[in-house]
Amino acid sequence: MKPRVYLDWNATTPLRPEARAAMVAAMDLVGNPSSVHAEGRAAKALVERARAQVAAALGAEGADMVFTSGATEGAALALAGRGLICADVEHEAVSAWCDASLPVDAAGAVAVADPARTALQLANSETGVIQALPDGLAVSDLTQGFGKVPLAFNWLGCAVGLVSAHKLGGPKGVGAVVLRRGLDLPPQLKGGRQEMGRRAGTENIIGIAGFGAAAEAAARDLADGVWDRVAQLRNILDAALSDAENATISVGRNVARLPNTLCLVTPGWKGETQVMQMDLAGFAVSAGSACSSGKVRASRVLRAMGFDEGAAASAIRVSLGPTTTENEVLRFAEVWQAARKRHFARVA
Amino acid sequence: MKPRVYLDWNATTPLRPEARAAMVAAMDLVGNPSSVHAEGRAAKALVERARAQVAAALGAEGADMVFTSGATEGAALALAGRGLICADVEHEAVSAWCDASLPVDAAGAVAVADPARTALQLANSETGVIQALPDGLAVSDLTQGFGKVPLAFNWLGCAVGLVSAHKLGGPKGVGAVVLRRGLDLPPQLKGGRQEMGRRAGTENIIGIAGFGAAAEAAARDLADGVWDRVAQLRNILDAALSDAENATISVGRNVARLPNTLCLVTPGWKGETQVMQMDLAGFAVSAGSACSSGKVRASRVLRAMGFDEGAAASAIRVSLGPTTTENEVLRFAEVWQAARKRHFARVA
Repeated sequence: MKPRVYLDWNATTPLRPEARAAMVAAMDLVGNPSSVHAEGRAAKALVERARAQVAAALGAEGADMVFTSGATEGAALALAGRGLICADVEHEAVSAWCDASLPVDAAGAVAVADPARTALQLANSETGVIQALPDGLAVSDLTQGFGKVPLAFNWLGCAVGLVSAHKLGGPKGVGAVVLRRGLDLPPQLKGGRQEMGRRAGTENIIGIAGFGAAAEAAARDLADGVWDRVAQLRNILDAALSDAENATISVGRNVARLPNTLCLVTPGWKGETQVMQMDLAGFAVSAGSACSSGKVRASRVLRAMGFDEGAAASAIRVSLGPTTTENEVLRFAEVWQAARKRHFARVA
Repeated sequence: MKPRVYLDWNATTPLRPEARAAMVAAMDLVGNPSSVHAEGRAAKALVERARAQVAAALGAEGADMVFTSGATEGAALALAGRGLICADVEHEAVSAWCDASLPVDAAGAVAVADPARTALQLANSETGVIQALPDGLAVSDLTQGFGKVPLAFNWLGCAVGLVSAHKLGGPKGVGAVVLRRGLDLPPQLKGGRQEMGRRAGTENIIGIAGFGAAAEAAARDLADGVWDRVAQLRNILDAALSDAENATISVGRNVARLPNTLCLVTPGWKGETQVMQMDLAGFAVSAGSACSSGKVRASRVLRAMGFDEGAAASAIRVSLGPTTTENEVLRFAEVWQAARKRHFARVA
């Protein structure tokens, strides 16, 4: 059997070896970080070390950081009850708390009128389109950008950022809200005084240790140019798939986008069908974001960009990562193009 | 250097070997449980296997179960916006959402008037006192009882239960809300459709795998009588420490309490001081619950039971676990008694 090819890195990533090692090491710690005894202090020190690692990787030294169970919890903490505005290209964990009424142009850019009342993502999970974040932004979902593009929270000009470990090689179920020092957010989880009173609940120390190590490794990869190589592979794929027959549109091709993301719209060939065909052929790709998959529905993101229902339902996302090889990319291109040919031969 | 002795199992527990193995195995899974491809389905299968393990250990077969980031998040999900009543012996993660006005007697028993509007814990984390749960109870925090005493959610007669992995040998940062089938709770975390729409956010699959394995192992231990041995050790300690000089009260000694918990009140000797002295001597114990430690404050739980401020501030909790040895218990008894003697000699 051929090995599987994983091209769904925007949904989630394989665990980095550094994260695995840090998590296994953390398993030996017995204490509760809130306990005052030696075992508790050791667990607390591990949490604080990870916090410094994430802050350094995120360019957020000196900012406050609240560890959460992921970006979804982070979004609730950052957004609940604030009545902010956003566009419909945001992840549903963000748009669920906002008035998603901002206009989006055909290239995916969001027009922000009032930054201080707006939540705007750094990069879109489905298309990879990168937004120019206006100064004074209230909240930015940095989840898809963190680790893939150079990023310094302290220079972004936004008050609150959301990040997640599992998008950059850390474990699922850990994230953080980073906030400009001095800002405060009312806790959504109440009880203990963890996280300086901003988020009650015993810390996920194994996961947090993994997040810290993964963030540090991701920042090193980024500095080492690993994502330039990923972008080259993505561009090879882009050229091979979208040029060939003019049947396929590469979304965001002419704007700033993530180095690893390819969103392909092939009207007349349903995204869900493509995902299932590719899965059977050994490739993991997605149609829309993982969180909203399972239901066959046109991409909200593409609809917001002006694609019609049929086109928006015929999109797939191919997302690469640091360990993706040229061979994997070329094999995918070959198999997917053959499937497309067969599909249109059948329906012709 | 002598090895440390960990006697703070109610704060958190060492990771069980079965949980560690399950977590390490889960680290190899690449997929997002919401993804439809093979990698996603494998991750989803792992979550569902853990759910069945936890349900079986909890006697909650057929009930619904929502995985959360711990009992604190579970409490928010089960309690927010419902205006339930409780007593001040509840963990702060519960009382934060309730009107904590129910009376508590000197033995720690809570008088419930309207079960359907009440949250009542199964067992207290500080004293180990076990409540007789009335039929028709709205919510019960089962966190401290689960794994230590025989328990079947389906026979408890309560609608919603809260549990946590790290109290029974699983990882910190994972818990669950179990609910009678057919019941529903509005989600506190919004966005994706995970957990049947009750809790958005990519699942902490490594932690959940650890929870499932730990719950299964804990149920086996309980069936094997491991906690009877723990109770014997606790009783040895209880006899040695509270009888000796009549200076120390063993709280809950004459009522049903957890097999592992000893709450010692020694008026005139501050709990925080005892914890620090014991820490220096190599023993991890606590004063009050870990979540509210760090601040020197009299135990809310003991105050609710009628202890005065001074007595309530002079309590420590010694909590044992399945790997606690007789030798450890006897060493602690010796060291603690000597410290008490020194303390009262000094202040006399």
